[in-house]
Amino acid sequence: MIPISLFHNLSYPRNAILVTSEDPGGRANAMAAAWHSPLSVRPPLYGVAISPKRATYEFIRRSGKFGINFLPFELVESLHTCGRISFREVGEEKLKRARLTPVRGEFGVYLIEEAYASFECYLVRVVEVGDHDWFVGEVKSVRGELRGNILDLGRVRPTLYMGEDHYITADPSSLRKGSIR
Amino acid sequence: MIPISLFHNLSYPRNAILVTSEDPGGRANAMAAAWHSPLSVRPPLYGVAISPKRATYEFIRRSGKFGINFLPFELVESLHTCGRISFREVGEEKLKRARLTPVRGEFGVYLIEEAYASFECYLVRVVEVGDHDWFVGEVKSVRGELRGNILDLGRVRPTLYMGEDHYITADPSSLRKGSIR
Repeated sequence: MIPISLFHNLSYPRNAILVTSEDPGGRANAMAAAWHSPLSVRPPLYGVAISPKRATYEFIRRSGKFGINFLPFELVESLHTCGRISFREVGEEKLKRARLTPVRGEFGVYLIEEAYASFECYLVRVVEVGDHDWFVGEVKSVRGELRGNILDLGRVRPTLYMGEDHYITADPSSLRKGSIR
Repeated sequence: MIPISLFHNLSYPRNAILVTSEDPGGRANAMAAAWHSPLSVRPPLYGVAISPKRATYEFIRRSGKFGINFLPFELVESLHTCGRISFREVGEEKLKRARLTPVRGEFGVYLIEEAYASFECYLVRVVEVGDHDWFVGEVKSVRGELRGNILDLGRVRPTLYMGEDHYITADPSSLRKGSIR
């Protein structure tokens, strides 16, 4: 039997992302997150769970905007570093240590240059649901490439979180189209 | 450039799940979903996006409960079948056609016997956010196994949705522990 508090570890693997934001001085920050989901196509909405303990929580509440960034598996250490070092302690050194480059998107939201896909989001709602709040953003711009409308796994290795500081990527050779029984 | 309406395809792969529910007559249903996330550890909360067009939407609103089920990649056709056939058309034949077995969990919620992990959830909130509503459930029971607190990829091949009816699984040989730069 598994303690209920470990339920989320059964829900992995999940795409590990960086949530980008900025402090009141305009300095870029990035937080690693695995609890997130698309919510709607029309309007385009994306949600991410953020603990009130995170610096990112205050920054997004204040600025009303955030970025969603998907990093290739080759940069798993950069992502993990953003998950373990706090902006509160090192400020904008955080992204430098992670060897990541913040760039402003067309809607003024910080994104990560090294990401293979990024969204700029404007905050539309914060749902207080438990020990994390659920931040809902409207997707204003999209960067990235698709092939046949899906991710090109020949070019991109997505970074998936497994829980307990572990990561994996997908097996491109297993790709298949679903069929009905 | 990608049309904004395809933003979600960049967020894949995502674990493909079955959301189980029951109609007013107590007949089991299962809906395939890829938009879902853990939301909180204390209390244990899980969220899933459900379109008002789905039979499942009414069933959960009415009964106040749902199941979250993770299927092995070997059963991708079963999962895909649940994503393509509607309970409204075939009733409880849907699960039979998908060759899946509904079983009641200890809190009375239908689960899928063939799943490698399942949660029973009691509905605590519905957030209306866009063309899908966000159903928040409190996790009441958990089935499944972990090894070193993560999924044992030697025993379980998770089913990941890629968009556009495509699926993949993870590459167990890529598993690694994150380290700080």
